[in-house]
Amino acid sequence: MSKVIEKLNVLDRKEATQILLAAKKQKGLSYQELSEEIGRDKTWVAAAILGQATMSEEEALTLVKILDVDPTVASVLQQYPMKGSLDSAVPVDPLIYRFHEINQVYGTTFKEVIQEMFGEGIMSAIDFRMDIQKKEDPNGDRVIVTFDGKFLPYKKW
Amino acid sequence: MSKVIEKLNVLDRKEATQILLAAKKQKGLSYQELSEEIGRDKTWVAAAILGQATMSEEEALTLVKILDVDPTVASVLQQYPMKGSLDSAVPVDPLIYRFHEINQVYGTTFKEVIQEMFGEGIMSAIDFRMDIQKKEDPNGDRVIVTFDGKFLPYKKW
Amino acid sequence: MSKVIEKLNVLDRKEATQILLAAKKQKGLSYQELSEEIGRDKTWVAAAILGQATMSEEEALTLVKILDVDPTVASVLQQYPMKGSLDSAVPVDPLIYRFHEINQVYGTTFKEVIQEMFGEGIMSAIDFRMDIQKKEDPNGDRVIVTFDGKFLPYKKW
Amino acid sequence: MSKVIEKLNVLDRKEATQILLAAKKQKGLSYQELSEEIGRDKTWVAAAILGQATMSEEEALTLVKILDVDPTVASVLQQYPMKGSLDSAVPVDPLIYRFHEINQVYGTTFKEVIQEMFGEGIMSAIDFRMDIQKKEDPNGDRVIVTFDGKFLPYKKW
Amino acid sequence: MSKVIEKLNVLDRKEATQILLAAKKQKGLSYQELSEEIGRDKTWVAAAILGQATMSEEEALTLVKILDVDPTVASVLQQYPMKGSLDSAVPVDPLIYRFHEINQVYGTTFKEVIQEMFGEGIMSAIDFRMDIQKKEDPNGDRVIVTFDGKFLPYKKW
Amino acid sequence: MSKVIEKLNVLDRKEATQILLAAKKQKGLSYQELSEEIGRDKTWVAAAILGQATMSEEEALTLVKILDVDPTVASVLQQYPMKGSLDSAVPVDPLIYRFHEINQVYGTTFKEVIQEMFGEGIMSAIDFRMDIQKKEDPNGDRVIVTFDGKFLPYKKW
Amino acid sequence: MSKVIEKLNVLDRKEATQILLAAKKQKGLSYQELSEEIGRDKTWVAAAILGQATMSEEEALTLVKILDVDPTVASVLQQYPMKGSLDSAVPVDPLIYRFHEINQVYGTTFKEVIQEMFGEGIMSAIDFRMDIQKKEDPNGDRVIVTFDGKFLPYKKW
Amino acid sequence: MSKVIEKLNVLDRKEATQILLAAKKQKGLSYQELSEEIGRDKTWVAAAILGQATMSEEEALTLVKILDVDPTVASVLQQYPMKGSLDSAVPVDPLIYRFHEINQVYGTTFKEVIQEMFGEGIMSAIDFRMDIQKKEDPNGDRVIVTFDGKFLPYKKW
Amino acid sequence: MSKVIEKLNVLDRKEATQILLAAKKQKGLSYQELSEEIGRDKTWVAAAILGQATMSEEEALTLVKILDVDPTVASVLQQYPMKGSLDSAVPVDPLIYRFHEINQVYGTTFKEVIQEMFGEGIMSAIDFRMDIQKKEDPNGDRVIVTFDGKFLPYKKW
Amino acid sequence: MSKVIEKLNVLDRKEATQILLAAKKQKGLSYQELSEEIGRDKTWVAAAILGQATMSEEEALTLVKILDVDPTVASVLQQYPMKGSLDSAVPVDPLIYRFHEINQVYGTTFKEVIQEMFGEGIMSAIDFRMDIQKKEDPNGDRVIVTFDGKFLPYKKW
Repeated sequence: MSKVIEKLNVLDRKEATQILLAAKKQKGLSYQELSEEIGRDKTWVAAAILGQATMSEEEALTLVKILDVDPTVASVLQQYPMKGSLDSAVPVDPLIYRFHEINQVYGTTFKEVIQEMFGEGIMSAIDFRMDIQKKEDPNGDRVIVTFDGKFLPYKKW
Repeated sequence: MSKVIEKLNVLDRKEATQILLAAKKQKGLSYQELSEEIGRDKTWVAAAILGQATMSEEEALTLVKILDVDPTVASVLQQYPMKGSLDSAVPVDPLIYRFHEINQVYGTTFKEVIQEMFGEGIMSAIDFRMDIQKKEDPNGDRVIVTFDGKFLPYKKW
Repeated sequence: MSKVIEKLNVLDRKEATQILLAAKKQKGLSYQELSEEIGRDKTWVAAAILGQATMSEEEALTLVKILDVDPTVASVLQQYPMKGSLDSAVPVDPLIYRFHEINQVYGTTFKEVIQEMFGEGIMSAIDFRMDIQKKEDPNGDRVIVTFDGKFLPYKKW
Repeated sequence: MSKVIEKLNVLDRKEATQILLAAKKQKGLSYQELSEEIGRDKTWVAAAILGQATMSEEEALTLVKILDVDPTVASVLQQYPMKGSLDSAVPVDPLIYRFHEINQVYGTTFKEVIQEMFGEGIMSAIDFRMDIQKKEDPNGDRVIVTFDGKFLPYKKW
Repeated sequence: MSKVIEKLNVLDRKEATQILLAAKKQKGLSYQELSEEIGRDKTWVAAAILGQATMSEEEALTLVKILDVDPTVASVLQQYPMKGSLDSAVPVDPLIYRFHEINQVYGTTFKEVIQEMFGEGIMSAIDFRMDIQKKEDPNGDRVIVTFDGKFLPYKKW
Repeated sequence: MSKVIEKLNVLDRKEATQILLAAKKQKGLSYQELSEEIGRDKTWVAAAILGQATMSEEEALTLVKILDVDPTVASVLQQYPMKGSLDSAVPVDPLIYRFHEINQVYGTTFKEVIQEMFGEGIMSAIDFRMDIQKKEDPNGDRVIVTFDGKFLPYKKW
Repeated sequence: MSKVIEKLNVLDRKEATQILLAAKKQKGLSYQELSEEIGRDKTWVAAAILGQATMSEEEALTLVKILDVDPTVASVLQQYPMKGSLDSAVPVDPLIYRFHEINQVYGTTFKEVIQEMFGEGIMSAIDFRMDIQKKEDPNGDRVIVTFDGKFLPYKKW
Repeated sequence: MSKVIEKLNVLDRKEATQILLAAKKQKGLSYQELSEEIGRDKTWVAAAILGQATMSEEEALTLVKILDVDPTVASVLQQYPMKGSLDSAVPVDPLIYRFHEINQVYGTTFKEVIQEMFGEGIMSAIDFRMDIQKKEDPNGDRVIVTFDGKFLPYKKW
Repeated sequence: MSKVIEKLNVLDRKEATQILLAAKKQKGLSYQELSEEIGRDKTWVAAAILGQATMSEEEALTLVKILDVDPTVASVLQQYPMKGSLDSAVPVDPLIYRFHEINQVYGTTFKEVIQEMFGEGIMSAIDFRMDIQKKEDPNGDRVIVTFDGKFLPYKKW
Repeated sequence: MSKVIEKLNVLDRKEATQILLAAKKQKGLSYQELSEEIGRDKTWVAAAILGQATMSEEEALTLVKILDVDPTVASVLQQYPMKGSLDSAVPVDPLIYRFHEINQVYGTTFKEVIQEMFGEGIMSAIDFRMDIQKKEDPNGDRVIVTFDGKFLPYKKW
């Protein structure tokens, strides 16, 4: 690394994530607890910490205060990140792969059913929110993941 | 194709899907309507028609009867298919791609939040059901997709 | 192919495209001329013929009438296609490759400038229209391609 | 890194980009404002900062002066870069992916329409300029991206 | 296909597999039952039918007799096949994918433990046999897959 | 690396693995010996050291004590790792490749035989254990690898 | 193939190539001889026959007349082809691979030397011609391939 | 990096290239000028500097003397490099991509024409030289690239 | 397939291979026996039959006569084939994969040793012959494969 | 890198290779000379130095003594390496690529001829040795590479 750049001492997004995760672990705080302080859903807070969503100044300052980390981290949290959390198109980690598998197996089912219900278009991944809940079940608890995206019809021109 | 195989006149899974989709369109029936006759969710019925789930004899016979297609189709619907509905790991069709994008962007979020809530393990894609609903909204209707999978904790040995 | 499927005599999307292009060539009609009859932009009409957009019944009937092709083609034009016009992620044909190159070279420029002007979000490729014009120039005519897509801001949750 | 090379203290293109982006942010200057000082379009200035275009000595000196960065950066800005701003052929970031999607879906449409209008050839990506504008719209502002490239007809020999 | 080749009426390996699977299903015979007639393990018989192992003349004749299929199939079963049963390096079908996942996750574990126990070398996949058993379990039956391969130490030279 | 992150002095999973393997070698301890101290199978202990399984606090403290390494390593061993031990989908190392080859050649055999014995479903790679044994043989010792995974039937909905 | 499309009896580009190559071989004519009749370079004539360049009506009629093939082939030769003569990005055939190797090894040399001689820009592959000659040499004849492409400087905007 | 290796202070090929390019730029010398001093073609000198060809001791010493760089660089220039100047099979940089495009489009033309002129064999990329010239042209200067490789006929055995 | 092309009844290289292999099997002739009739090595004869080498008229006529196949096959055997016998860069078939593995593991060894013995250059794969022998051994027969390729030194220019 | 790991000062395999190659060059020793001291073939010694084979304690100590390098290198040479010497499945370096090309072109020839001579099985790449010789020839010296691998027949079960 050159001398000029070294002096900048820039904190990149991955380092900010590492700092935040380490502090969160040390403080013993859950995403749910952070969520309540920041006023956003726990999945959104996790996404922001993991470099996939952008905090307002207020949200960022609240987070660095709760986690007691260097304030320069707050500035990184307000920048628009280059999105993409995985190293490859096909993930290997089993938890993440199952979501890939669902798309590979049920991808055409999504298309058939959504287009029959809504007409031609897509579910937005931008005007989008998601939720993860635990449903207790004597045969084994269940993970309930909900995607809630605006339907965007194709425009003709 | 050799003479020997030609005589078999085997109907493969893709052809069965084509026949069923053509008949469904001709009859003007929705997945919801088929769902009510067969007694399974509309998404599961779509998956079975698209070669991604296996019908019981009764379900298959009901379906071919409603759609009025050749009864040999019912036999194909009862075979265990080689699963996978897409041609490539990264889909191009925009509706299906958005699901891929959600995984690429929020994959690590799924992992962080699910493991914090449940411990180390995965959401099953086998002991799994899904649901697709339309939520009417004056700013544009919303697609609500729900995944409901059993949490499977890693076993130590 | 089995006997059962053969009887269906289904016309698939690629065949419909071939029929329409052959007829268009035989009639000597341009996309501009088809555009005027159908009441849609020439690029949209081309996209529909090439299996990337869906016509209304009226649009489809107009087209098959002008081109004097088998009426079953009109029915194919009204189905929602599996989108994607290229065989590979990196196209080889030089005309199409140049658009890929523009994205590879200026992809981060799009991101920087659009996000600075609009905030964090994307240009929709669904609520989207495009236009292609010829600008005459003594040093060589110029191709003017315009993309016009709705800005979609990320929603927080 | 060896001692010999360490002494060179070479500033590479990525580091120059980092320095310029950090300074631009600190100064609170937009690409539009830089554009006015340098006398080039905002998209071209962004491309140069991002390592995809080459500045003249005058342009480079103006830029480092406005942004008040180390003058060695000006020298890097005048070198011809190895072009390509993305890590992979298929980008993951949603804003950039939408441009990839447009090519995948409308690639054959570009080819059909441009060749019908101009004859056989391509739109140059070298004798090329682009523009990004905001069109205000009560239903949501729109991103207007324009490509303006010289048509190059194939030469026979 | 040319006239010359058409007259050959060659039965290829995939067609032989299709014929055998169709006949097996029609006869209602299991791999275990075929195994007992042929005198080989059920997994080996399945592999041979699926084009991944080669039968002796006696084994092949026994199989075509039990399944009552065209005797030319027996000749195909005695040819050495080009091996490889999957379409891609990373399988999509969930049952098959789990084996891929085991290798991705535990690949270095195999290497560490086998080399510690045996020294440097490999488990042969040629001087190899496998077995699949069902272990009944009140919490859900278990699949027991056993690989039994000769250890081959690296030779120095 | 920025100053802020440098102060964190975080030990990542790969470094923990390196430390543990170096200490294990120095102590001359086998996985079998570690296994007896920790009370888990040798393959599971190896997987945990290699970053593919998670230890309880007690297991981790036992391990760092036996191997006499820095206690911060124990904390890393209790974190849920991002799983995946290989650099690529198709491994090159001959020992690991043979397992890939077994799947490529016998993948459809697994599917045929398991589904015939159990019905439609998969062998879990999560509710899963494995074992590696040496079987002495005058013609060359044999590696016996056993996978023991719960059968998970597809649920209909 | 459906009945409707079958009636079209369209001759595609690959078939036209096959017909032309078969006729060329039967007539015993070289590309040089065709070149002299058509008035274009032998490499360009080869490219046109191989579906990579487009003939005028006159050129196409001359060619089908010399080769005495079905006149519908002349019409195919006048259509703008989807360009790209190879099945993969990295060719396997040794003759073609050597050209790929030259680019892999000397790609940065092309860039350094051309940009030093011409400034920043590219050698056009559109306003382009090539030539292949044999240079006799007692140590083995030599293949002389010449590319002659217009230099296109990057335009600023 | 370990202490042991650090003391070696090895200069690798990429670093040598960086040093040479920086010195060449500082001295304001062209490849043509270096070529005249060294007694080799400018393209060959560029290739050697870029790590794709190997200099004799005399050539290397001449070069480091002209460029006034650390003499250890001369030793690196005499080592046989691992060849390959590009990061990927399909280059992104537009200047280099055009050469890739020429091969993709005209690859089969090379094969057809060379084999017709020379018989079955290849143009060597080893017993090979190339040349790059500027041809002035009022319509835009032209880049003339010449490959001159020995024809190697396949040997039968 | 169009009517025009159908009439050509062209026999392609793969079909010729199929015909020759079927005839060879039916006649019960080995490559060694064919080799003796044709006067070429058994590996070269196999390569020619498999579409990877080109026969002279005399060799081709001898082969079709011995195997008693349609004389049009002899003409195909004299055409220069597009070379490459495998479907993918990484073969799956275990016999063929082992050769790939040898290159992956010992590739740098080839480079180090050959360049130390011969200087900088390559072993030609064109001026090349190979041989396969069986060496009997009480511990298991051995396959002896010999490559014999001309060393080609890099030429400077 | 963390403080804890830094203190370990581990020498990895690539660094050991670099040290050995640098020392070998400095001492001016050939693989043949090392081979004679160590009592193994020159290709095997090269493979061990390049991290693809494992030395005994005696061999390793002999090597570090001859090359006069740090004794910790001897310990690295006795560890079982993760094998694989190339960065990619398709090598770019021309010397190494030619071996890849031989497999791509003659892969099916290997299979046909070996299986005809030996029955169904493979040539082992583990119970394997190789040799590289120079054969002097007035028309250019020849590289003779010999593979000698045990034939392993498939076992039935």
